[in-house]
Amino acid sequence: MSLFADRLAEAVRQRGLLCVGIDPRFDMLPVAYQKFAPAVAIEAFSLKVLELVRPFSGVVKPQAAFFELIGPDGMAAMQAVLKRARELGFVTILDAKRGDIASTATAYAEAAFSQSVWNADALTVNPYLGQDAVEPFITTARRSTPRRGLFVLVRTSNPGGGLFQNALADGLPLYRRVAMEVNSWNEGGLGECGLGDVGAVVGATHPKELAELRAAMPNVWFLIPGYGAQGGTADDVRAGILPSSLGAVVNSSRGVVFPFQPNDSDWETKIIDAAKKAQAELRG
Amino acid sequence: MSLFADRLAEAVRQRGLLCVGIDPRFDMLPVAYQKFAPAVAIEAFSLKVLELVRPFSGVVKPQAAFFELIGPDGMAAMQAVLKRARELGFVTILDAKRGDIASTATAYAEAAFSQSVWNADALTVNPYLGQDAVEPFITTARRSTPRRGLFVLVRTSNPGGGLFQNALADGLPLYRRVAMEVNSWNEGGLGECGLGDVGAVVGATHPKELAELRAAMPNVWFLIPGYGAQGGTADDVRAGILPSSLGAVVNSSRGVVFPFQPNDSDWETKIIDAAKKAQAELRG
Repeated sequence: MSLFADRLAEAVRQRGLLCVGIDPRFDMLPVAYQKFAPAVAIEAFSLKVLELVRPFSGVVKPQAAFFELIGPDGMAAMQAVLKRARELGFVTILDAKRGDIASTATAYAEAAFSQSVWNADALTVNPYLGQDAVEPFITTARRSTPRRGLFVLVRTSNPGGGLFQNALADGLPLYRRVAMEVNSWNEGGLGECGLGDVGAVVGATHPKELAELRAAMPNVWFLIPGYGAQGGTADDVRAGILPSSLGAVVNSSRGVVFPFQPNDSDWETKIIDAAKKAQAELRG
Repeated sequence: MSLFADRLAEAVRQRGLLCVGIDPRFDMLPVAYQKFAPAVAIEAFSLKVLELVRPFSGVVKPQAAFFELIGPDGMAAMQAVLKRARELGFVTILDAKRGDIASTATAYAEAAFSQSVWNADALTVNPYLGQDAVEPFITTARRSTPRRGLFVLVRTSNPGGGLFQNALADGLPLYRRVAMEVNSWNEGGLGECGLGDVGAVVGATHPKELAELRAAMPNVWFLIPGYGAQGGTADDVRAGILPSSLGAVVNSSRGVVFPFQPNDSDWETKIIDAAKKAQAELRG
């Protein structure tokens, strides 16, 4: 399967809608891990999480910020985690929310997709800089081997996300204008599953907008954050899912990765239980 | 001087408005540097550029994308370049255009400002995610020692930047709404120079909007990209400068850092001449 959309469809068919967000925060790690240097600790913990959640999820989303916070060694840990995730068969979404113009955007995209750098299957992208800022990401994703995907921020899950995203422009909120562009970009990369390679980030915390955006972008993969710790429920995300049971992956980070206290000895069981429960809830 | 705005003012008073953008592209380096591994080459070249431009500029802006493109070793090179720039007395702006929510935004800000990670004086930030996404950056900048600054993307220099930024919302283009927020955030961090710690990125390629935004954000530091290689002239940027000769730094990346071909033996002289010329043009 050379197309990102089809690889993601296969992962969802096999394991369901759950995407596990890998947000390794040093001070939340099990105490045994906190004895090591931060880069060593977050890498080892993240690799363990990959193993534990593998039966319940086909998609993982490492959060670049928590690796960057450790510096260059943390970025090396991120590279190792992405590599191992690929080896385990996960579809990998690098959540770095990059955005820049021209050759700088191309450099970010090449870093995300190059086999010698992050080698992720997909990257999250910020659209504020406009069409000619997103296009280098699309071009680079489509000329990579295998072909990669993007998730463009459309409507984010945070309480204040509407400040600019909901601004009414010619009667349409800005997020709808971004959605129109995403829908159009996506048409150029449809796979056999009927969906494409330019996805949309749409928060679970806005169920009404999720339904509206599903209708506005019928062939677009959604990455839905905000489920679990941020307050979105499995019911809240239903509107994002197509009748084919495809069309969306639903991210849980803290809810699945940190359902324990650092001193808990049964933290592995707690992660397994949280992942199993999330998978089942999202299937229900 | 503990406030970012005052450190930037001092740099501009001493050396003028020029900010040199450090965008080390491996295939544009002098041939002698291209014999080394990419991370070694871009670090060595960037350190040399710092020395060469020091008499003509008090501010440098490393572009994270070109370091990230080399992977973890490239990020280590970025760290070394930022460290050396500080030692040489430059005010450093890390151009990474970060943007995320809540604790993830805090992680990016801590990475940017922590003495053990990038330790930059300022960071560029994308506002699309709204107020509660920008606030963790502001909070972290203000509690760092010394206090740091931000430059929020308002009106970018690329031809397609207007697609969303110019969308008219209640009669006001989106970039003006972003400017109103920046102006308000900035009021909380004014220094002795009368300017604050939440700056705005406003492209030199839109002189009319630059004048409009100068009026809308009277106490805000501007970072003006698009001068030089992107087509903006010294005349185009005048509207961004205050009567005090403060208020803006004007970035040139390729124009100052790559005014030569890889085979040119006199590339050092060409960089010195380009920096000297840019400094003089912007003073004129």
